[in-house]
This record gives sequence, C-alpha cells and structure tokens, in this order.
Amino acid sequence: MLQASDRFARPALSLIAVALALLGSPAAFARDDAAAVPTPPDIVASAPAGDWVAIAPADLLVIDLAPAAAGHARRVVIQLLPAPFSQGWIGNIRKLAAAHWWDGTSINRAQDNYVVQWGDPDGDDKAHAKPLPGGLIENGEGAYVAPRFALPAGADSALSLGADAYAPETRIIAGWPVGLDKDHAWPLHCYGMVGVGRDNPPDTGTGAELYAVIGQAPRQLDRNIALVGRVIEGIEYLSTLPRGTAALGFYATAAERVPITASRIGTDVPGLPTYQYLSTTGSTFARYAAARANRRDRFFIQPAGGVDACNVPVPVRRAP
Amino acid sequence: MLQASDRFARPALSLIAVALALLGSPAAFARDDAAAVPTPPDIVASAPAGDWVAIAPADLLVIDLAPAAAGHARRVVIQLLPAPFSQGWIGNIRKLAAAHWWDGTSINRAQDNYVVQWGDPDGDDKAHAKPLPGGLIENGEGAYVAPRFALPAGADSALSLGADAYAPETRIIAGWPVGLDKDHAWPLHCYGMVGVGRDNPPDTGTGAELYAVIGQAPRQLDRNIALVGRVIEGIEYLSTLPRGTAALGFYATAAERVPITASRIGTDVPGLPTYQYLSTTGSTFARYAAARANRRDRFFIQPAGGVDACNVPVPVRRAP
Repeated sequence: MLQASDRFARPALSLIAVALALLGSPAAFARDDAAAVPTPPDIVASAPAGDWVAIAPADLLVIDLAPAAAGHARRVVIQLLPAPFSQGWIGNIRKLAAAHWWDGTSINRAQDNYVVQWGDPDGDDKAHAKPLPGGLIENGEGAYVAPRFALPAGADSALSLGADAYAPETRIIAGWPVGLDKDHAWPLHCYGMVGVGRDNPPDTGTGAELYAVIGQAPRQLDRNIALVGRVIEGIEYLSTLPRGTAALGFYATAAERVPITASRIGTDVPGLPTYQYLSTTGSTFARYAAARANRRDRFFIQPAGGVDACNVPVPVRRAP
Repeated sequence: MLQASDRFARPALSLIAVALALLGSPAAFARDDAAAVPTPPDIVASAPAGDWVAIAPADLLVIDLAPAAAGHARRVVIQLLPAPFSQGWIGNIRKLAAAHWWDGTSINRAQDNYVVQWGDPDGDDKAHAKPLPGGLIENGEGAYVAPRFALPAGADSALSLGADAYAPETRIIAGWPVGLDKDHAWPLHCYGMVGVGRDNPPDTGTGAELYAVIGQAPRQLDRNIALVGRVIEGIEYLSTLPRGTAALGFYATAAERVPITASRIGTDVPGLPTYQYLSTTGSTFARYAAARANRRDRFFIQPAGGVDACNVPVPVRRAP
C-alpha cells in the first residue's frame, strides 16, 4: 500500500523556508495531490506581500553563541514584545544589550521539554557575580499582566481561540498569543517564547537571566513570570543543546555551558536580515488559523474543529 | 534583590531523577523554603511504594542508536499502549522487533517543535526498500479510535481534565492521556508520544515507520494517525538531534541520518532495568495532578486553576 514518491516527498516550500523552520510543524507528513485543500503552509505561501509586516531591528535582541564543534555559527534572534506587555523588563534588556552585558556569559541550563536558560552562572554568588549596568528598574507582579485593552477593529483582527485550561479567553493579537480575563491581558508561554528568570520574590527578575521554552507550553507560568519576546530564528540552536544532568537541567560542570559571544539589539548588528511576520489582522492569517483548526488537506480524515493558541504559531520569514 | 543560594539551588531530587527526566518540567525554577506547599515532584517523591506500577518488559520497545560522537550510548525505551488502543499496529511492531527489522535502518527526520521519525529511508523506493516481515496486518482509520469503554471505578481513578480545543473530554486513564466523546476514546499526541507514519490513505501505516513528538503537542493528529506508545527513557537522544534541513525536517543527506543498531522488545534485552509508572488511580496521582493545575508552591503567585492533559505527564522511574 506504500506509494512511491509520497511518503518522503519534499514539497517545494522554499519561499517560506524560514517561516517553516519557525512554524515547526505546518505540513504534517507528505501530500500527493496538488489539487487538494490547501495546507496551512500553502495558505501562508499565498499571502500577498502586503500581509507581511516588517519587524523593526530595534525590537530584536540578537544573541550569538560560540560556534558549534563543527564550526558553524549559532545565532538566535529574539523579537521583543510590544507595549503594553513587560516594557519595564524590556527596557532593562535594552540597557543590558547596549552594555553587551551577556557577552562572556553562557547558557547554563537545558531541561528537556521545558526551557533553555542563559545569563551569569555566578549571578547568585555576590563575590563573583558580574556587575549589572546602572539604571535597571525593578518590576513586580503587577507588571505580569496589562490592563485589558480595546481590541483592534475587525472581525478577524484579533482571532479568538476561546477559553482553555489556563485562561477564560485566548486570542492572537497584533502577532502574539494572548490570554484575557475581563480586566487583564497577558502573553502566553508558547514554544519559543522568552521569559525572565527570577527568584521566589516576584520582583527579583531584572531581565539579565532569560529562558526560552523548548517543549510543551508551560502555561502554568503565565502571569507568574514576565515574558519578553520569542525566538524568531535559531531556536534549533537552543532546542538541540545537550540536556543538563544536574537538577532542573542545569549543566553539572562549567565546561558544559555554552558561551555567549555577542549580544546586541538588532540596530547594532551589521547585515542583519529584515524579518517580517504575517499580519494577524489580515484575511490570510484568518484562513491560516482556520486551516490549523480544521485540517482538511488530503492527509487528514478527522478535522479537530479547534486549535490551541500555542498551536497557531505566527509565521515569520526573512524578507524576500 | 537576588538572594544567594536560591536561584541556582539544586533540590535533592535524586529519588525521582528518572521521573524528572521524563516529566521534563515539574519543578519550575528554584525554591528556597522547605516548609512551603509541596511541588508536584515533592508529591511524586512522597508516593508510597504501592503506588508504583511495574511496566512489563513485554510492553517495552527498546531502540539503540549508534553511539554519539562523544562515544556515549544512546538507548530509547518506549512503553507500548495497552488495549484497547492501536493493538493491530502494536502487533505489527512486535513482529518487526522480533525480526530485528529496524536494525540497520535510521532516524531520517528531525523537525523542530514537531517530530523525530525513523525507519527505512528507502521505504518508498520499491527497488531498494527493506522487505517487511510476513504476517503484518493492515489497519485502517476505524482503528484510530476505540469504542468508549466503562471508566475504572473511583472518583480519582480516571482524572477528568475537561474539554479542550481538540476533544469534548480529556482524561488520564490507566496511565495514559485520553480523549473521549460519547462514543469513542483515543490517545493524545502529547510530548514523547510515539506514532505510526503513513501515506495519505489511512490504511498505509504498518508500524515500520515511527515518530516521536518533540514539541508542542500536535493534537491535530489525534484520530488521524495511530499512536502506539510513548518514550519513557532517552527522549533527549531524540529531542536534541540536529534538525534536518530538507523540507519537513528530513535529513538532506544520508550521512546525516542516525543509524539504529538494535531494536528489541524488552524481554529480549538482557539487564534492562525495571520501569514503573505512578498509578493514575491512586491518591498520590490525584494530588500530583491537582498541584499541576494549581501551583501554590512558593515560586507561584497566580495558580492557573486548570491544566492541559498534555501538561500532566505521568511520572515514570526505574524501580529503586
């Protein structure tokens, strides 16, 4: 029953290769019928140029890791969250990046199905901690949520994905997955999101210690930690790191840590590509999300009829 | 505000080290107060011996990968699903393992935030495909779900986690995450679950080509592909593999594939440890799941009040 040519078929998806790398999972297995209902990546590939929104280099944090053993460069590009979310921490992150503070620090933790975390491995040792730049502000638990704001106009402009176990309402708003109740809004801990490590007191996270989600969305962290952005390129340099063998996935020895060689805001990175995300207020995104919720392309026999907010990754690409 | 000793604290969790490796994320960051409300791993560590259920070696599929460059062994242990789920495919898998069919095949695909997939890379090339053993049976879409069955007795014996975007009802039953509607039950595509690759026709998956989930639960695949088990040890040898650069995360060259050196049912593996899972009908599991849904240990300030079925990983350990 195995048909030649389709199980390992490789559709021509180069136009959205970057988006694919970020989406991770848009095309489930292979298709063999070009006339079939379009897949989510088919829909993304058909988006008019005007549906793609440029991401300002000033809103990117670029982290370069030491080259891998094989010698290839490892760059992680993070898009910072827009207002009204987490701007106190993001201001600190801009100051840390301007000071190149992460240069010479390292990735210190990789816990399977959870997070990769980086910063100063001696941060808790007052005698050896790397001094922080001046002017960082303290942010407390009140800043983990924003007041609920007026949603953008238009039926499909703030796609509602309904309630889930963690929020009375979830939406994709202005390019980001958001949870809402009647009074507040907050970003969601989806795959690739970046947040601020802290100690137990809620006001102890400066932004100097960051983590990225590399597994099932740990949504229990929503409203308990500040999210500041998401990885839009290079997540594989984090998600494939060897897992730490000490408790919580920390590396047991200093030798296992992965050095960070450079950390800059995008405006300070010569030759950085222009990145774009697919507007979440356009009709293309609405069709894409609907297709994610109801897969009717040829491989599928039972559309789900719904989709988790963390399973509608916002397509991102390098500008063609 | 950073307190020495807690940010990088390493709680004494050795008793459940294996469970931790599998749970991935039970202990969010560090704690500094032993008198605080117990964390989910605290609860698991307190389980009486009688709450741990041995997994029969006959229900394990053991896959050995070629050693990594650094020389360390890489063994992946998969627990096969019990009846009534997917037993036709699992019967095929037992025949394939008895024939050591996967020996000499390889991991051919690693797509970030989605799946790692293994089997015969030439499976679709009739001139070069590795012959399958005799006696494999064909299974169609009717077998992707089981008739709804009577739930085990007891209030906490089949923990209900409510509806989600993909199923009218989700539960943890007999150690597995399950979706239900009024007529049917089916296993859920959570992190670490293992399924059967197929072509577009629903009856084309024999069980020879398998994949494991290494990212956000791709629940759109529920009821569209047969799940056959889950990785209970060694998931990190799959989740950290370099991502493939061809479409869908396939490796672009044969040299990138990771050889499978041995594949056996657990009863044929000398010296295999005994594995146990935490009974999901006991009070310990009910407390563990409740704590996953309402984190009140010291780090947390805002309990979620709910939890996704894929965010209650069933603890598994080597028998002490």
